[in-house]
Amino acid sequence: MHAPSLPEKEVASRLVAVRGGLGCVPGVRLAGVHAGIKPRKRDLALIAFDHPQVCASVITTNEIKASPILMSAEHIEASGDAMQALVCNSGCANACTGERGDRDARATARQAAALLGIESTQVVVASTGVIGVPLPIDRVQRGLERCVAQLETGGKAAFDAAEAIMTTDRVPKLASYAFYEDGKKYVVGGIAKGSGMIAPNMATMLAFIATDLPMTRAALASALTEAVDESFNMISVDGDMSTNDAVYAFAPSGDAQTPPSAFARALRAVCLDLAQAMVADGEGATKLLTMQVREARDTTQARAIGRAIINSNLVKTAIYGEDPNWGRIIAAAGAARVGLDPTTWSLFLNDKMWVNTGAIEVLSEAEAHRELEQTQIVVELRLGLGLASATAWGCDLSRDYVRINASYRT
Amino acid sequence: MHAPSLPEKEVASRLVAVRGGLGCVPGVRLAGVHAGIKPRKRDLALIAFDHPQVCASVITTNEIKASPILMSAEHIEASGDAMQALVCNSGCANACTGERGDRDARATARQAAALLGIESTQVVVASTGVIGVPLPIDRVQRGLERCVAQLETGGKAAFDAAEAIMTTDRVPKLASYAFYEDGKKYVVGGIAKGSGMIAPNMATMLAFIATDLPMTRAALASALTEAVDESFNMISVDGDMSTNDAVYAFAPSGDAQTPPSAFARALRAVCLDLAQAMVADGEGATKLLTMQVREARDTTQARAIGRAIINSNLVKTAIYGEDPNWGRIIAAAGAARVGLDPTTWSLFLNDKMWVNTGAIEVLSEAEAHRELEQTQIVVELRLGLGLASATAWGCDLSRDYVRINASYRT
Repeated sequence: MHAPSLPEKEVASRLVAVRGGLGCVPGVRLAGVHAGIKPRKRDLALIAFDHPQVCASVITTNEIKASPILMSAEHIEASGDAMQALVCNSGCANACTGERGDRDARATARQAAALLGIESTQVVVASTGVIGVPLPIDRVQRGLERCVAQLETGGKAAFDAAEAIMTTDRVPKLASYAFYEDGKKYVVGGIAKGSGMIAPNMATMLAFIATDLPMTRAALASALTEAVDESFNMISVDGDMSTNDAVYAFAPSGDAQTPPSAFARALRAVCLDLAQAMVADGEGATKLLTMQVREARDTTQARAIGRAIINSNLVKTAIYGEDPNWGRIIAAAGAARVGLDPTTWSLFLNDKMWVNTGAIEVLSEAEAHRELEQTQIVVELRLGLGLASATAWGCDLSRDYVRINASYRT
Repeated sequence: MHAPSLPEKEVASRLVAVRGGLGCVPGVRLAGVHAGIKPRKRDLALIAFDHPQVCASVITTNEIKASPILMSAEHIEASGDAMQALVCNSGCANACTGERGDRDARATARQAAALLGIESTQVVVASTGVIGVPLPIDRVQRGLERCVAQLETGGKAAFDAAEAIMTTDRVPKLASYAFYEDGKKYVVGGIAKGSGMIAPNMATMLAFIATDLPMTRAALASALTEAVDESFNMISVDGDMSTNDAVYAFAPSGDAQTPPSAFARALRAVCLDLAQAMVADGEGATKLLTMQVREARDTTQARAIGRAIINSNLVKTAIYGEDPNWGRIIAAAGAARVGLDPTTWSLFLNDKMWVNTGAIEVLSEAEAHRELEQTQIVVELRLGLGLASATAWGCDLSRDYVRINASYRT
């Protein structure tokens, strides 16, 4: 049936960015409506799958987990090979809401299940917004009815859903890639919300991803964990997550025990695109910092140092101020305490050597300042210890970050 | 000779705040001058002891340690029972300055030793300021000559020295307490610089402390470690320290193998006063947050949670904005991942119950907002797990913090 116009090998390695996010994945329908949880804006999204899906997740390690996070983990435990819907609201995190929070999460799943004719354990629920405020459950329930009525395939529906899960995000976040497996074309697509500044802590991050390539739940879980480690975990510090953080991925049930490599690459591309979109849209961010750590002993070391640097308030404010204060970058790397050798490192700024081994400043302060005037800044730290690398993405810390977070609620 | 007017037991338990900081400790002379390392202001301090002292230190755990930190550790290793001087400059951290940095630190110690007629290993050197810039060693050396000429006892000299070690500090920091041991009166006094915001990371913190009560180096070290854990370590995150952080304590050599309890209490009081002064003077700080963690399983848990909360940017910005967003406090506690039970905690604000067990909001949003309008805010988190407590001190994160740190150098 399928006749590729390129030689098979070339086709197999192709990864093509496509439009539509989650909306371009066959068998996925979406809707995003204004349910009245927050004023005016869309605040309730529904994702429905035509067929039961295997589901994998990466959820917050915070000891305070929101009710929907806990309930969804139970549902995936019970029906993880046959999930069929995801509901997500913004405007209220339904976290620290006690027993009422649990009841409201269950009521949401039950309602979605009833409307879609499935079991409530086949529904994942996610929430984002203010902590400690109860979910206006009657509005959610009326909103769900309108969601079900509006379910559609395609990019417009995905855009609406992506908009409905936003909090302080300025733009909806969608990403999708086509890839080839056994000569056939498949897609993987996602929507996400980032925000807060993400790093250094606890601004909710949600991503919902699906593919039409069948596989086992184990294969999907393995690919997801790896992709998350290289993307979402490199913009936010492990173990310092919000009460509501979650990434959920869905795929049709199939035989593949390990993730096909083309799928793994496509999934990684989707996660990277979404993660970078979150950073670029960080609260008050004026600059995007790509922090490359090279010549590390191993990936763990490279990642820990990359994260330490993008999470340093002193580095972030220096970037905002275009101040070529490289000492703050090195001090942040040293504070990670993962075996930095003070005598072997060197530093590059936008591909120019900045500081050579032995702390010898090569780029003048004026030159470095000019480089920092750009809005996309790439800093490379070579540790001189080995062959491993990692990349972390961060943004600057601006006065607007403070303004936004000082008045988020009141 | 000494005739206390109070019953002996009462005298023994008295701890009296006295004036003069390090300047009120017998046998200590100080000076602070403008050496020209930075424009206009005092930038070089010298502390000289009439007699050799035992010396204890707590230094940064950052893997990148400034040259003076490394050299001083060697000196204390060599002559820790007979230290006799401390030199500290501001305006330049002498960190990440390669071999030249090591030479400059040694030249500083050598010069001070020559001027004072002691060995250079009897000198501790400390530096604070911008990283990666070489020390203007000739200015330091000329400044040292003037310091030696101006050495004096008393509060005025201590104030000058405290001023000379300031970076973005707005006020010099001094503290001193008198205490009684075996019916005799002694003092312990110190000077410090804080700043940066301290927490969450890597703004240099220095404290220099001395007493006239003789003891062994081991006794001094044990008292210092304990006092630092309850004070300076509760305003800054362990392991996330600057290249130059250090606390040095000095005492006459004596037989006491363990620290007398009156001294330990006085030392703790000095450290607490200095630590709180640092927080109150945090860059751009408009409010002081005292975070009490009670009913913890153990002190380690209580401290970890206290530190996690005062280090959360989202908590700090909420305090700045007077936004009673208590969910951020709980989420920060959960992110510490030290065994918080989500069902047993309760929260108090300025002694009023804020949120009861089960996440039941007791104080209305308007009432809580009024409490947050104060400049000194006390939040108490009861974990409901045990009997241990800890207190951490933090400040808010204001737009001025960003302004100061975006333009610290350029």
